[in-house]
Amino acid sequence: MTDLVSRILNVSPQETAVEDSMLAETVSAIFDCLQACKACADACLEEDLSGLSRCIRLLLDCADVCMATGQVLLRQTAFESPLGRSLVEMCSLASALCAGECSVHADRHEVGLRMDHCRECAAACRRCSDACDRLLAALPA
Amino acid sequence: MTDLVSRILNVSPQETAVEDSMLAETVSAIFDCLQACKACADACLEEDLSGLSRCIRLLLDCADVCMATGQVLLRQTAFESPLGRSLVEMCSLASALCAGECSVHADRHEVGLRMDHCRECAAACRRCSDACDRLLAALPA
Amino acid sequence: MTDLVSRILNVSPQETAVEDSMLAETVSAIFDCLQACKACADACLEEDLSGLSRCIRLLLDCADVCMATGQVLLRQTAFESPLGRSLVEMCSLASALCAGECSVHADRHEVGLRMDHCRECAAACRRCSDACDRLLAALPA
Amino acid sequence: MTDLVSRILNVSPQETAVEDSMLAETVSAIFDCLQACKACADACLEEDLSGLSRCIRLLLDCADVCMATGQVLLRQTAFESPLGRSLVEMCSLASALCAGECSVHADRHEVGLRMDHCRECAAACRRCSDACDRLLAALPA
Repeated sequence: MTDLVSRILNVSPQETAVEDSMLAETVSAIFDCLQACKACADACLEEDLSGLSRCIRLLLDCADVCMATGQVLLRQTAFESPLGRSLVEMCSLASALCAGECSVHADRHEVGLRMDHCRECAAACRRCSDACDRLLAALPA
Repeated sequence: MTDLVSRILNVSPQETAVEDSMLAETVSAIFDCLQACKACADACLEEDLSGLSRCIRLLLDCADVCMATGQVLLRQTAFESPLGRSLVEMCSLASALCAGECSVHADRHEVGLRMDHCRECAAACRRCSDACDRLLAALPA
Repeated sequence: MTDLVSRILNVSPQETAVEDSMLAETVSAIFDCLQACKACADACLEEDLSGLSRCIRLLLDCADVCMATGQVLLRQTAFESPLGRSLVEMCSLASALCAGECSVHADRHEVGLRMDHCRECAAACRRCSDACDRLLAALPA
Repeated sequence: MTDLVSRILNVSPQETAVEDSMLAETVSAIFDCLQACKACADACLEEDLSGLSRCIRLLLDCADVCMATGQVLLRQTAFESPLGRSLVEMCSLASALCAGECSVHADRHEVGLRMDHCRECAAACRRCSDACDRLLAALPA
């Protein structure tokens, strides 16, 4: 997908706020994170385990923030830098929170529970958070 | 709608971060703003007038931010205050930006263009921004 | 909100596929349903009761379908009737399914569980389904 | 991404309605299409060319339908087959419509306009439509 978004941005008339490939990479990490969060929230719902409401909540929050951020970044016409930056910051925060919470539950899998979805999801959240941080360093203030 | 959300929150097991009625009012203002932005963006697209891309862009951004914020606020289980606050702040910012831009175009209607949708939308955005500010004053830090 | 959407449509340049007020009423019922479903899903998550996964699942599905349908209906420029109709049909189906499932759980509240959110949500879903059916009868084939 | 979703589904407790890898492939094609549509709609907005409103409209509709369908498919707990099927059918329809419209504009690029984003987007829409059709053939009736 990174390639597809990158190619579309490359042939689009708007000037992008940062290099196309970096933008495409971030957007791709954000949409991956969104999908991982939605799939993991559904799997958590099915686990025979109480104490997962905070995790499910953060997964759904993170997916909502990813959705908004990914869509705003795909609009490069008249890119509003302060709003864009705040969203990317929040996306980094939300996915870092989610990565932290999912990691806790991933580690319970030794108890014999199949919580590897939390491990996979934590990794996707961390990649998203890192990509957002790299974009923030490159975006104009 | 304020009443419906308020009633649902009222009979729900989770503790809400602020009073149910204030939360319901904010959520309602946010979803109204979302709908106004989407309808106005579509109307702008149809206007025989160049120079509306920044307006359309901000309308769509604002709708995306409203969507995320409204949905996160409707989840009161294990409400994550820092993330919630940041989202509400951004929603206030996005809708204020949008209100400002729409107001500019609303004023062109004297030229004979039917841009009253921008006037209505600016008002909805301002109500959303104000509601977010009131919620921020009430939400725990 | 019905009034706001109705006013915006009324001053917009596009021809609407049906009367503005009917369109506004449907969109409003759809967004109410979306909010009710999200709030109810969160409340269900917090209930000390197993056997709610199908209910939560349908609530989230219904919210997703409402989101898509509401947004597509708010775009009246070059309205694509077959696609619009299919979405409204699906929205009617999703909210009817959800109303049915929520009603089942609303009736358990005699056991002492605070499941009145399911009762409120079932009513919102039913209003949405009915509004969609009325719109379908009015939309061009 | 296909791999990530596939891995998450694979370690999740719910039974999936079809093979994990096929589901993951469809979801991935759907989210790619969503991103392509959003990026292409923004690029179209910036083109110095009238007559693109139907194209922009279909792009935004298709993105909305992809969003709903992708999210519903990621919820495999208590998968509701009739609703799921209808959504996938509509997603196939919406992306086929969009592919057709984008192809028309892609062919105008010989006039010197940079409409290659429409060409890329048409291809992404077609892949999405095809993936939906393959899933429909595999999903239980």
